[in-house]
Amino acid sequence: MAVQTVQNTSASDAGTGTVDLGPAAALSCRECGERFPLGPIFACESCFGPLEVAYDLPTDGPEALKERIAQGPNNIWRYAPLLPVPADVAAHPNINPGFTKLVKADNLARELGITGELHVKDDSGNPTHSFKDRVVAIAVEAARAFGFTTLSCSSTGNLAGAVGAAAARAGFRSCVFIPHDLEQGKVVMAAVYGGELVGIEGNYDDVNRFCSELIGDPLGEGWGFVNVNLRPYYGEGSKTLAYEICEQLGWRLPDQIVIPIASGSQLTKIDKGLRELIKLGLVEDKPYKIFGAQAEGCSPVSTAFKAGHDVVRPQKPDTIAKSLAIGNPADGPYVLDIARRTGGAVEDVDDEQVVDAIKLLARTEGIFAETAGGVTVGVTKKLIEAGLIDPSLTTVVLNTGDGLKTLDAVAPTTGPTATIRPSLDAFREAGLA
Amino acid sequence: MAVQTVQNTSASDAGTGTVDLGPAAALSCRECGERFPLGPIFACESCFGPLEVAYDLPTDGPEALKERIAQGPNNIWRYAPLLPVPADVAAHPNINPGFTKLVKADNLARELGITGELHVKDDSGNPTHSFKDRVVAIAVEAARAFGFTTLSCSSTGNLAGAVGAAAARAGFRSCVFIPHDLEQGKVVMAAVYGGELVGIEGNYDDVNRFCSELIGDPLGEGWGFVNVNLRPYYGEGSKTLAYEICEQLGWRLPDQIVIPIASGSQLTKIDKGLRELIKLGLVEDKPYKIFGAQAEGCSPVSTAFKAGHDVVRPQKPDTIAKSLAIGNPADGPYVLDIARRTGGAVEDVDDEQVVDAIKLLARTEGIFAETAGGVTVGVTKKLIEAGLIDPSLTTVVLNTGDGLKTLDAVAPTTGPTATIRPSLDAFREAGLA
Repeated sequence: MAVQTVQNTSASDAGTGTVDLGPAAALSCRECGERFPLGPIFACESCFGPLEVAYDLPTDGPEALKERIAQGPNNIWRYAPLLPVPADVAAHPNINPGFTKLVKADNLARELGITGELHVKDDSGNPTHSFKDRVVAIAVEAARAFGFTTLSCSSTGNLAGAVGAAAARAGFRSCVFIPHDLEQGKVVMAAVYGGELVGIEGNYDDVNRFCSELIGDPLGEGWGFVNVNLRPYYGEGSKTLAYEICEQLGWRLPDQIVIPIASGSQLTKIDKGLRELIKLGLVEDKPYKIFGAQAEGCSPVSTAFKAGHDVVRPQKPDTIAKSLAIGNPADGPYVLDIARRTGGAVEDVDDEQVVDAIKLLARTEGIFAETAGGVTVGVTKKLIEAGLIDPSLTTVVLNTGDGLKTLDAVAPTTGPTATIRPSLDAFREAGLA
Repeated sequence: MAVQTVQNTSASDAGTGTVDLGPAAALSCRECGERFPLGPIFACESCFGPLEVAYDLPTDGPEALKERIAQGPNNIWRYAPLLPVPADVAAHPNINPGFTKLVKADNLARELGITGELHVKDDSGNPTHSFKDRVVAIAVEAARAFGFTTLSCSSTGNLAGAVGAAAARAGFRSCVFIPHDLEQGKVVMAAVYGGELVGIEGNYDDVNRFCSELIGDPLGEGWGFVNVNLRPYYGEGSKTLAYEICEQLGWRLPDQIVIPIASGSQLTKIDKGLRELIKLGLVEDKPYKIFGAQAEGCSPVSTAFKAGHDVVRPQKPDTIAKSLAIGNPADGPYVLDIARRTGGAVEDVDDEQVVDAIKLLARTEGIFAETAGGVTVGVTKKLIEAGLIDPSLTTVVLNTGDGLKTLDAVAPTTGPTATIRPSLDAFREAGLA
């Protein structure tokens, strides 16, 4: 979702008190660097650039910090000293995502011709089975700090469920906006947590526009929109993917990491997280390459990358990878910067390759990925074939969601090998023994 | 699924070699106590009673054992010293389930009038999102030890996916048998891992009968049926729920625990696990009560319990809680014993109460449960109202699967609060601000 420039004036008031968000010191503009006190604002007052959290990072030295982290809970709150959350965050009611499996994928590595280490970071293990639980969990803490009572978002799927679940557990009212014609399965997942769910007669752009209006209106007073006025905090949740990957590798940077691109925020925050770990001395300072993955039917960033452009030209999405289908990705230019700076690349695969990659991952590692996972695995294969990913190094591929959420992608081509009468003769004839 | 009395003679040969399954010392008959060497057998040669694993449990003392466990991985293999698996099991390719969240459910406790501690053990966090991953993971290690090359089962859902995923990752061929007319979603989940999936023209009973024939036939040579000839090992996976609950409570027994009943195996193995922990001194020896939960439409055990019977009369299942719909539960009589011995009970709820309970858990704790989770939460509510569960004590309720797998149960009554035009006026009129 695009960062928006309308500020929630009513909610800004909530940010003027003393706010304890742990090591978070201020918000700073990613464009002009101007700093602002912590509050529910998301765009620079001077240049309209996106705001991000600036930290006073811990100074207790790498070994002591590793020890603190190891003593923490088996979720993202083990990294509380590096996140915009209070020190006692683990005691708050929250959905507690994270510390998902980093699966050493030897079978997949063999099929892809990888001779080094290949790992899949499998975020389908989160509470509502996508990485969105990470970002929402942080937004919940910011909402609490700013005194919001309602959590909201616009969504077409994963985010709605993550907000509904987190709000229910954390004791917030929730009100989530979706296009009125979503598939029933997604509607059920968004509604089952008992919050308000409002269908908007229009498409996702109409829903977004409506939310922007609501944020600037007294009607929206006390409302935290996780991906709008809480976005600077929300986005930081993706850093935890970087922390977990490195800790699970034994406090080691991967050489290469393949990340899906929707708005591009996740990729930029993983890079931010890796740089923090280097700065803190938690990992050795060595080069790493970041690769971005898109679906061909919504590939504005890979198109710009391959054309050598700095700007990203919007596209009208048409792909089965709906969770990545953002035609005008807000962080696209930052993604281009990072891919180029680290020596990575941005690539895309078509829908058929996405389906093939979902099946490849399932068949080799027993991981059933959402379409976004098919995109990263498919792009990894393509980048190896193109010589851009070095198969002799350590590579991490992200799976950010669960195949149960996008069954339609594989259903047409996934079914029984055979259907037979219940007899040994019939089984023998089917040739499966 | 019922324990069957046909032995796989061909596979028995595989068990005559030296088998390293860690602390597993033998199989022993639950009825007559006769012991047999570890092998792929499942029924007593003397009395046809079900076999279970007998152990040489660790002797290194409770504190040393706790330390060993704490050093282990964040999955069921941390309990390898108490399971029928080799000591180096964590290094084998396997699906690595377990160590799922024990959620302190304060919001739900308030709604149920619980003044003590209430926890939900949420097994939807397993790799294929049900507790079946635990039992299948152990069966995989047994299959490896016995030299099987194909993993198989009969299934109507969760088990098929768990076997498919585990076989893919562990490097086994899989061949899973399902009724030919399953819903497409379940078929996709069973087929996506790339193993053989065979639809059988008939109902689940026909599928089971066919598998029994196959196991006794040369066609089935080298095949490990996880819930038939590997059943004694498979069942032990449920013990890990007991271990995790106690460890996550700070090495403390819950006072009361509510467990769903399908075959009844899970309940009996959780009891076995709790008794082992007491014997090993890992928890204080004090009374605990075990409660069994069924759906009214398939309640042979609760019917027998309430009538004071020792035998369980089979029923024809008719309930939305399909993962519990076993009309002739093999371990029913053992469940009755345990509920009576511990001072617990067995109760059932109707389908409407199941749906209400799913929504209650989602609304209060942000956990979207499978119908089986609705059964346990609904039964907990009923048992509190009946005065059989003491609301002042520590209670643990199991959720054994994920709501994404049984969307149909809640879909008819779960949808948007309102559908509006994208305007603030329309929103104001809807009265949701």
